Amino acid sequence: MPTTTENWAEQVRAGEVRAISRAVTAIENRAPEGEKLLRELFPHTGQAYRIGVTGAPGTGKSTLVDRLAAYYRGQKKTVGIIAVDPSSPFTGGAILGDRVRMQGHATDSGIFIRSMATRGSLGGLAQATSDTALLLDAAGKEFILVETVGVGQGEIEIVRLADCTLVVLVPGMGDDVQNLKAGLMEIADIFVLNKCDREGADRFEEQLRAMLTIAPERGGWRPPVVRTIATENKGIAELAGEIERFRRHSVGAENRRAREIDLWKTRLIELLELRLMERVERAGIDDAALSALAVRISNRQIDPYAAVNEILATAGLGDAR
Amino acid sequence: MPTTTENWAEQVRAGEVRAISRAVTAIENRAPEGEKLLRELFPHTGQAYRIGVTGAPGTGKSTLVDRLAAYYRGQKKTVGIIAVDPSSPFTGGAILGDRVRMQGHATDSGIFIRSMATRGSLGGLAQATSDTALLLDAAGKEFILVETVGVGQGEIEIVRLADCTLVVLVPGMGDDVQNLKAGLMEIADIFVLNKCDREGADRFEEQLRAMLTIAPERGGWRPPVVRTIATENKGIAELAGEIERFRRHSVGAENRRAREIDLWKTRLIELLELRLMERVERAGIDDAALSALAVRISNRQIDPYAAVNEILATAGLGDAR
Repeated sequence: MPTTTENWAEQVRAGEVRAISRAVTAIENRAPEGEKLLRELFPHTGQAYRIGVTGAPGTGKSTLVDRLAAYYRGQKKTVGIIAVDPSSPFTGGAILGDRVRMQGHATDSGIFIRSMATRGSLGGLAQATSDTALLLDAAGKEFILVETVGVGQGEIEIVRLADCTLVVLVPGMGDDVQNLKAGLMEIADIFVLNKCDREGADRFEEQLRAMLTIAPERGGWRPPVVRTIATENKGIAELAGEIERFRRHSVGAENRRAREIDLWKTRLIELLELRLMERVERAGIDDAALSALAVRISNRQIDPYAAVNEILATAGLGDAR
Repeated sequence: MPTTTENWAEQVRAGEVRAISRAVTAIENRAPEGEKLLRELFPHTGQAYRIGVTGAPGTGKSTLVDRLAAYYRGQKKTVGIIAVDPSSPFTGGAILGDRVRMQGHATDSGIFIRSMATRGSLGGLAQATSDTALLLDAAGKEFILVETVGVGQGEIEIVRLADCTLVVLVPGMGDDVQNLKAGLMEIADIFVLNKCDREGADRFEEQLRAMLTIAPERGGWRPPVVRTIATENKGIAELAGEIERFRRHSVGAENRRAREIDLWKTRLIELLELRLMERVERAGIDDAALSALAVRISNRQIDPYAAVNEILATAGLGDAR
């Protein structure tokens, strides 16, 4: 067990699995030592290529991510996988899913897999995911695959950290192309048409391409459509090729830089909110205290604005407004 | 123009349209006088019945809301309508949509219609919607219809304030019942099958009912399915009947009380976050300052945790952690 943060940071940078696992747990628990570690590691981040993978349940995202990871490993690249499930109350490295998935890579120290799930707020999850990606970045993983179900607003926040975002679709899932959420169109750098041996795949692809033709280009990039059958390992190399093409396209691109700065700005605000709310909690305004105030508001004994002022005063954050 | 908050509050309580309009604008702009007014009015709230109406674009929500409002007016009930569009950058009472919609009710002072749209954050929108509902409540509106597109997490927040939530569906919109978002199933007190003269309506209804049979009951209520053709005013009275049935069911129900307290708790936290962030802004940490910090983080000149500490110190919120 590491004795100092410096020591621990060195072990993480060396890619030691147990040190990384402990670090993810510290991040998830928002333990102070997790933050210390991240601060120590931060200067060594910024090297990994982060690939976000999102799509509706049942589109085969996990299999696709596994195959893509295996492909990169075949190229002697190191890989980290973060599987985010905002709807699941389970978390941590010990859940069954991780174990099953690890089996394929169990003897391979060049790959690290971790599931993360909601603990309280979605904002906290986006934060934890982002911090875990930094950690794996510092640990020298060359590709970080962040997989998330969705797409709601929360999942979009999670995917935003990616350098390249894959949106996974499956033909014949009842979604006509025109029902695709606008949000999906906006975040996709590459569309993956998985299970492309299904009926209706050609028609679906045709519609999708037609839609992409009229969609506005972003920074000179028109999202390609890649057909895959992840379970049969088909189309994976082509997908990796398109990711590489996007990566080269993005190098030095003005919008990539703008995107990263924008991302840090969002994270700063989130972190600020988390920090201030922690301060309120530390002042003893816990869940029970909030409930008691809510009861008084509900009974019209106090108005919500007065209640907030009361909380701020208690937390020593009273303002002069 | 009212000279004092007390005066203004009296005019709002008397249902004066211009006083209410000015108040909504003050709320949207987060002006201090809006808050003062709400505090004055708060003891007079808690009487209105709030009906949330949500569903995908194209389901005919607006028409349905208009017809339901007309039905209540026919029953001599006063009505407020808040149309929330999280995806629209437009807002305020002057937009075309409001004017067109108002025409049908233009000479009727018993109805008040207002559109609200995103200004900055979704959290802010939920807050403004909730405050506007309080305002219309104090203004004596007996039914408040809150209409929102969606359903993402943000829209769920907005609908949460409702005493009764209608989820509007349309057969043949490509959504098979099994593709219904889980979120929709959870928030619906009543399902409205609008445009029910469309092909596939019977099959759709059958599937929906089958799904509801296996869904867990909440507080002894199983959401009914009401068929409507809003454009032809069909099914509106039946819908109002089901709303009334749910209302009577909810009176004194343990879960209704729990729901309201939970809602106030959520609102307290949101309000707290807004308040703290306002304080940061007032300390001069504006958008430009955040961008400058984000650039430094992106260049690895400062880590995000150090940046947040810097902001907190500048805002006089520095903590001892």
